[in-house]
Amino acid sequence: MSLRGIRIPKKVLDAQYAVRGEVVNRAEKIAKELAENPSSKPFKRLVACNIGNPQSVGQSPITFHRQVLSLLTNPGLLEHQDLYPKDVMERGRKYLNAVNQFGAYTHSKGAPLLRKEVTKFLDRTDIGAPPADPEDIFMTDGASQGVRVALECIINDANDGILVPIPQYPLYSASIARLGGSMVGYHMDETATGWKLNLDTLQSALEEFEKNGKVCRGMVVINPGNPTGNVLDKTEIEQLVKFAEERGIAIMADEVYKENVYAAGKEFHSFRKIASACKATVPIFSFHSISKGFYGECGLRGGTMHMMNVPMDVQDQIYKLSSMTLCSNTLGQSMMASIVNPPVKGDESYELYAMERDAILTAMKRKAVIVYDALNAMEGVTCCPVEGAMYAFPAIDLPQRFVDECRAAGTSEPDNVYAIRLLEATGVIVVPGSGFKQKPGTWHFRTTILPEESLLTDCLQRMTVFQAEFLKKYSA
Amino acid sequence: MSLRGIRIPKKVLDAQYAVRGEVVNRAEKIAKELAENPSSKPFKRLVACNIGNPQSVGQSPITFHRQVLSLLTNPGLLEHQDLYPKDVMERGRKYLNAVNQFGAYTHSKGAPLLRKEVTKFLDRTDIGAPPADPEDIFMTDGASQGVRVALECIINDANDGILVPIPQYPLYSASIARLGGSMVGYHMDETATGWKLNLDTLQSALEEFEKNGKVCRGMVVINPGNPTGNVLDKTEIEQLVKFAEERGIAIMADEVYKENVYAAGKEFHSFRKIASACKATVPIFSFHSISKGFYGECGLRGGTMHMMNVPMDVQDQIYKLSSMTLCSNTLGQSMMASIVNPPVKGDESYELYAMERDAILTAMKRKAVIVYDALNAMEGVTCCPVEGAMYAFPAIDLPQRFVDECRAAGTSEPDNVYAIRLLEATGVIVVPGSGFKQKPGTWHFRTTILPEESLLTDCLQRMTVFQAEFLKKYSA
Repeated sequence: MSLRGIRIPKKVLDAQYAVRGEVVNRAEKIAKELAENPSSKPFKRLVACNIGNPQSVGQSPITFHRQVLSLLTNPGLLEHQDLYPKDVMERGRKYLNAVNQFGAYTHSKGAPLLRKEVTKFLDRTDIGAPPADPEDIFMTDGASQGVRVALECIINDANDGILVPIPQYPLYSASIARLGGSMVGYHMDETATGWKLNLDTLQSALEEFEKNGKVCRGMVVINPGNPTGNVLDKTEIEQLVKFAEERGIAIMADEVYKENVYAAGKEFHSFRKIASACKATVPIFSFHSISKGFYGECGLRGGTMHMMNVPMDVQDQIYKLSSMTLCSNTLGQSMMASIVNPPVKGDESYELYAMERDAILTAMKRKAVIVYDALNAMEGVTCCPVEGAMYAFPAIDLPQRFVDECRAAGTSEPDNVYAIRLLEATGVIVVPGSGFKQKPGTWHFRTTILPEESLLTDCLQRMTVFQAEFLKKYSA
Repeated sequence: MSLRGIRIPKKVLDAQYAVRGEVVNRAEKIAKELAENPSSKPFKRLVACNIGNPQSVGQSPITFHRQVLSLLTNPGLLEHQDLYPKDVMERGRKYLNAVNQFGAYTHSKGAPLLRKEVTKFLDRTDIGAPPADPEDIFMTDGASQGVRVALECIINDANDGILVPIPQYPLYSASIARLGGSMVGYHMDETATGWKLNLDTLQSALEEFEKNGKVCRGMVVINPGNPTGNVLDKTEIEQLVKFAEERGIAIMADEVYKENVYAAGKEFHSFRKIASACKATVPIFSFHSISKGFYGECGLRGGTMHMMNVPMDVQDQIYKLSSMTLCSNTLGQSMMASIVNPPVKGDESYELYAMERDAILTAMKRKAVIVYDALNAMEGVTCCPVEGAMYAFPAIDLPQRFVDECRAAGTSEPDNVYAIRLLEATGVIVVPGSGFKQKPGTWHFRTTILPEESLLTDCLQRMTVFQAEFLKKYSA
């Protein structure tokens, strides 16, 4: 066995994915202990604030979309004429006519009509951009699949750099590692009024990497920001587009939180829209998903990738790679199409739809403030406003004695140890900042704003007590 | 732009995936031409015999599984007590209780209860193997996702070889190319009684590759065979297991056609079962899928990977890589669980279920013979028995004049040109043998046995006419 056996590639070992890393593994063990002995911990249940997974913490799906989905899974339900509102039946019939059998593979890019549904949405929202073409759309199993296949067509080896904002969502660092490329981080500035783009930092990150003949070929942007919760201004987007355009760097625009904007005066602008206004010719890959927004259909795995200015030979390769898994799941495809074309005023389902949507978005907006306020009220914790997305990313001022203790113990990063202690004391699962990368010497964690309000308040109270005791212990 | 731009990696360019290659691209154009002018071709419609996609050519989904699925997509349907048979309602409730929200991400391996459903099936069918553990199961978006992630943990670079039977399903050649590894083909013998394993060929393929210090680390087996339609005997499986065991080569067992065995006296044996009987300790990855069998739920994208004897560090890496896409789609997961635990005698749905299952399997069995007979009746065509799976892979005796003509024109492989001519003349889409690899100097194509019977017969008649005219033209 030893001669051959399995030799795990370094690229695979190098990929880190903290959202489901050490803290989550510990949480799984705690869950088992709690199941065996419910009074074994100082809390009754775990609260998963480590992952943007709304339906796991109390959010209900939007009725209209799920009713449509049930017709697609069992078209026999169409015979029950009074089962659903008329617009649900119509939508079900429309998608069934278009796709024929949801049990059959579709075109590798996704079913043509469902892609067309996505272009209708893009044309409605990306005002001023050229009309979207269904041929430029790939339906994907969640946004991550699209990100992966686009990166695969860009990254040859460690000489190819991908600019990624720091802090970043670890899908990017992990995917780049897995493909053997180089992540080139550009730090966002953590200011009193929020996380801001710094063009000088971006420029010097690029220069530093390219000193030895290496080349940055792609630039990831995440707007609204994950984990930072910032919403890029129009000016920031223009600056990023011009930066990429001048240097011929392909943009990968992660815009899965486009419907999650809470802060007054803030508005979502897509890179595609701004780039069109700038007459940019640089390739732009734009990603959207059914997992976020106010629908939160994570489990169904649906997403889209739109390509603008992407050369045909690259498109052909992306098509070929996508063909190898034949197609993304058809129910995720139809959910994607449905979500971007919800009922409109006058439709029988509209009132219920609008009520469900508004209830979720209003609660998220409120919870964004609740989390922000509670975190900033904790001693040793400061947090930028949660302008959008689903996360707060507070800075924690870890006492030097604690940091020294972690270093001496030679265990994992201090913020990882902090997150594990927080978990053991409160049952709240957060992700340590080191999983997202952060400025050396700073420490953070990411928590979602998603739990149902009373549960969220309860979590924040327990975190407040923990933090006070933690500081007391280490400042004594 | 030229300085940076996108440089497509060689690994990506090298990956070939003929199932959706040049012939299919041509077919897409023809479909458009037919839509514009229905009388522009010598046929009225295209028939997709290029891909094992049963529901695209007339097969209906199994009622029980789809009814359950509709409850999972819209649990509100449970309130309509008389809507479905009792066992459908019970199954729906069971899966809803276990998964809670199908809109939430599950564990990265899949929802624990759904994995447990798969182990029940394995324990029922792999008699003599140790009880299956849900921890050893990954639920995947189709089998291809599992294959990919397992290969990624084995292949470092071109020095790592993966043994693959020739002819092979191009998922393997393409995935190995994409990961930068080396495919080491071992030819199956094409005999009058079917495609047979040849241990000497396997041994010399390994020796040839390992001459220069390279190492074979994995061995793919496809049983029932794709594209070859053979079903491995128990002895052949034992030989393969012993070969791998003696050399410490991990086995990747593609068993997605395990329920598609038609030939009298043939029986499916899983590698896991035989390896357990041999007390083998070599790692075995076993793949199953909801896309094949008699259910054919390709579009939903569901599959499983079972790991036996896989070292824990490798399992940990597979878990990490799977975590990066969070989980496979929950509806595919539940369909996988449902399909391997169908209604049993006494259940309210059993009769309908058994009728649907038997109708599909009986028709497949009949069509396997129809295709075999029709192909062998064509001059210049010989075809091994279709013992299982969904395909015939006939050898075509291409006239030397035709081969010379193709070579002189410098176009694609002669069997590719043949498949395109066949398409243009008959509307039948097949995949040229070169997409699967084949012995030099031999030519084949792969066709499915799936179209509804009268359509299939019509296709075979048109193919017969085409082949006769083709031979006439080139033998003149």
